[in-house]
Amino acid sequence: MTERLHLYDTTLRDGQQTQGVQFSVPEKIAIAEALDLLGVDYIEGGWPGANPTDSDFFAARPETKATFTAFGMTKRAGRSAANDDVLAQVMNANTPAVCLVGKTHDFHVTTALGITLDENIENISASVAHIVAQGREALFDAEHFFDGYKANAPYALDAVLAAYEAGARWVVLCDTNGGTLPQEIHDITRAVIEAGIPGDRLAIHCHDDTGNAVAGSLAAIDAGARQVQGTLNGLGERCGNANLTSLIPTLLLKEPYRSRFDIGVTEAALTTLTRVSRQLDDILNRVPLRSAPYVGASAFTHKAGLHASAILKDPSTYEHIEPALVGNARLVPMSNQAGQSNLRKRLAEAGIGIDKGDPHLGEILDEIKRREDEGYAYDGAQASFELLARRMLGQLPQFFEVKRYKVTVERRKNRYDKMVSLSEAVVVVKIGDEKKLSVSESLDATGSDRGPVNALARALGKDLGPYQACIDDLKLVDFKVRITNGGTDAVTRVIIDSEDGRGRRWSTVGVSPNIVDASFEALLDAINWKLVRDGLEPVRATGIAAQ
Amino acid sequence: MTERLHLYDTTLRDGQQTQGVQFSVPEKIAIAEALDLLGVDYIEGGWPGANPTDSDFFAARPETKATFTAFGMTKRAGRSAANDDVLAQVMNANTPAVCLVGKTHDFHVTTALGITLDENIENISASVAHIVAQGREALFDAEHFFDGYKANAPYALDAVLAAYEAGARWVVLCDTNGGTLPQEIHDITRAVIEAGIPGDRLAIHCHDDTGNAVAGSLAAIDAGARQVQGTLNGLGERCGNANLTSLIPTLLLKEPYRSRFDIGVTEAALTTLTRVSRQLDDILNRVPLRSAPYVGASAFTHKAGLHASAILKDPSTYEHIEPALVGNARLVPMSNQAGQSNLRKRLAEAGIGIDKGDPHLGEILDEIKRREDEGYAYDGAQASFELLARRMLGQLPQFFEVKRYKVTVERRKNRYDKMVSLSEAVVVVKIGDEKKLSVSESLDATGSDRGPVNALARALGKDLGPYQACIDDLKLVDFKVRITNGGTDAVTRVIIDSEDGRGRRWSTVGVSPNIVDASFEALLDAINWKLVRDGLEPVRATGIAAQ
Repeated sequence: MTERLHLYDTTLRDGQQTQGVQFSVPEKIAIAEALDLLGVDYIEGGWPGANPTDSDFFAARPETKATFTAFGMTKRAGRSAANDDVLAQVMNANTPAVCLVGKTHDFHVTTALGITLDENIENISASVAHIVAQGREALFDAEHFFDGYKANAPYALDAVLAAYEAGARWVVLCDTNGGTLPQEIHDITRAVIEAGIPGDRLAIHCHDDTGNAVAGSLAAIDAGARQVQGTLNGLGERCGNANLTSLIPTLLLKEPYRSRFDIGVTEAALTTLTRVSRQLDDILNRVPLRSAPYVGASAFTHKAGLHASAILKDPSTYEHIEPALVGNARLVPMSNQAGQSNLRKRLAEAGIGIDKGDPHLGEILDEIKRREDEGYAYDGAQASFELLARRMLGQLPQFFEVKRYKVTVERRKNRYDKMVSLSEAVVVVKIGDEKKLSVSESLDATGSDRGPVNALARALGKDLGPYQACIDDLKLVDFKVRITNGGTDAVTRVIIDSEDGRGRRWSTVGVSPNIVDASFEALLDAINWKLVRDGLEPVRATGIAAQ
Repeated sequence: MTERLHLYDTTLRDGQQTQGVQFSVPEKIAIAEALDLLGVDYIEGGWPGANPTDSDFFAARPETKATFTAFGMTKRAGRSAANDDVLAQVMNANTPAVCLVGKTHDFHVTTALGITLDENIENISASVAHIVAQGREALFDAEHFFDGYKANAPYALDAVLAAYEAGARWVVLCDTNGGTLPQEIHDITRAVIEAGIPGDRLAIHCHDDTGNAVAGSLAAIDAGARQVQGTLNGLGERCGNANLTSLIPTLLLKEPYRSRFDIGVTEAALTTLTRVSRQLDDILNRVPLRSAPYVGASAFTHKAGLHASAILKDPSTYEHIEPALVGNARLVPMSNQAGQSNLRKRLAEAGIGIDKGDPHLGEILDEIKRREDEGYAYDGAQASFELLARRMLGQLPQFFEVKRYKVTVERRKNRYDKMVSLSEAVVVVKIGDEKKLSVSESLDATGSDRGPVNALARALGKDLGPYQACIDDLKLVDFKVRITNGGTDAVTRVIIDSEDGRGRRWSTVGVSPNIVDASFEALLDAINWKLVRDGLEPVRATGIAAQ
């Protein structure tokens, strides 16, 4: 008999406190829809009234299975809940649930609010009762609860009991400053249950200031709390909130949680987790964290030679879960620590079968070594590795040939006497017998110049004839530049991460003393990889025109 | 009475398993020196023999207070420890301590090694005894220990007891696949102690695959382990190792650890933690994680309005520790007052005197903040900072004005039918009333193209009239490129290190979505800084030609 454990997502509210993050209404709608498909129980949408975007979002919010929740604060002293205009704006968002933050730490009541301890208790009771009287589900967000409990346990308990007795469906124990360690969270959560609030009325809300937000949340669940709050990708103020992207697979896949609890996320929905995580980064224009638990691009990447050879025999030797369960994938990258078995595995994953002992294996390893000495890095550019191997095995079709390109960057005054720059690229490719000349400038949505590499990418992707439909959804998501030693001279290494409409991501590398050239090489690989992987047929030259 | 808790750093060995990371020997030396100053007890330098760089590093390793440790694996079956050539290469590194990894999970012994369970135990005993007989400190790295214990507890315990009885100073309990949760780590560590290995002979080695590596390490310490292993910034294979950058301040500052343990890191050394963390990112050319616990740029940034106003009354309202304790700083948007005395000190260092309370101080701070939001970084570009301050104080002469520039990169076949590239730049400057037009291509000593930035630098430095003698000895010595967030869009930040004939070095920064433009801005600053510092007189326009 499993128990129900509830997930409460606050990406749209606490997650928006991340430095540099400010969601638009359409972005909030897209995230809310993804969260609902994933299967969280509550979606906290923002603070209506405190932020104009939040008010607009509540007016436009999508239909969800999840319980939509508005956030606000308890009424202020000296007026009734019904007459508090800040609270009224929260209620006016008309959500089925309302979560109000209030003080439980005596020091904050007297220092930050400047009211008496009793007045604060009255504010909590009256505010929660007001929500309940309006027929909404009430949550009380007990700010600084753990610090408050350590400073004055009887008062902190009185505050949360007041909310519970006034009818709060959930009392949320918040480690607002993020400094409480998991063992303490466990013990204090138990103390609250012993003080009279049942665990299935308690929620845990952790921050990651010591790197323990996920563990602190699990510790509270172990102690009896039955709602866990967090954000996608651990967004949030300072070091972020508890990362739901890490917590969800742990709760669904790992003991004791797997056997003990039922959460709203199904195993089928769990396979969308990696995509949802990347989608959020995409909205925020952030580079996804490679090392993120479960969903990071490196989470199932095996670099050490010993690990890679064991993985070939049985993936469970160095993997704690099957990557497909969370929609992620295994990767055995190339590096100078890897041997032939690693190489065969990597080739097999790319659909390239090659026998053990085939002399090509040694040749490919030598070529990789030679190129790594020149400054290439295949460890972070598996798509370029794959193309290199295919080329050496005679399995890389020539889809098109770049005859030449030219890029210009110019900086001068415009007609308003303001210095502006303009980048322009011309690329000439030959597809079969046909020569195609494409030109592009580089402008973003605001009309600003994005530079020569952007112009080149646009010109190259503008007209590739019969391949065009295949590459139309190709998007550059990251661009990394490093000056490194190639032989005796400094060279530039460019690594480009690309993504397509299906959410596939791949990385390619280019090296040259000339940064534009290095970028162009990586761009070409990015396109060729997609053409190969999508199984396109190369257009053959008839031989009438010169090759 | 405090107990000693030992810190074991494996940034240089397990940290190097991070995807995309490959340290050079000078980089390893720099990191080892930083770790030693910080005060870790052990520095694991790599696997001598497995990787040529690692062997070179052990030959060149610096003198340290920390115990230098070489990593390897237990001898193979069918030969003696003395006759195992892999083990011999590890011993030949001549480190005071040697850590050998071995199997403790029955499944791995039979599947990955293909030997009997007894042979494996014999390999462990004989290898550890061999290290001890050579007068070295022995550590046994019990790979997959937690999974092994869950599968076959008696065998896993026999394996670690064999190492302990053979004289291992430390038995390292490794959660190799990173899937064990903190509560399990706690319970199994206790079971090992009950089986006969004292806690002060036990180490914990966690990975972050569920986001619990820090918490798992603390759980093992709670259970009695007295050595904790990890890496700076949590580098490491897949999701990384336990993050020492998070663990160290928790152990030093937070209860129950603060009162209970003595670690090698002092409170004074702790204030270097943020700098050490950034130094590692710098070596790896990685963007520091803003949300990193303790050391991240956002770790003490208070964005929420309610938080920011309370912080002004008392920082402890929303901070779990004082940021200066770890060498970090508080950031409250819209409140720059705290930075003014720092700024005066920095200006004084550049020879710019300014009175306390001068309103320019606030203006300069605001401008730096605004530019840092756009992607500039003045910490690593002191010369650009100095020019910015001089400009705002009206102390920066206009030596020359760049009217326009144009750079072309072309790639096409040469007359030998080989693809070659060529970069060419034209720069137009005005000095006084005189307009000067310079052109340069970019070729190195071998006649190869070095790219558009090189061409621009040459054209710009070709003819600056009366200033030419001053800049003739100016040389570009390093060029760093990073893609970063400027406002909502990705921009390119270029940092250029320059040097002159007297051996002076200075760094300048440029930011733009266009990499050529960003580079040009940094180049201009590099020249202007030298003209200012060498005290050159600007050529004035007579006003006859239009400005």
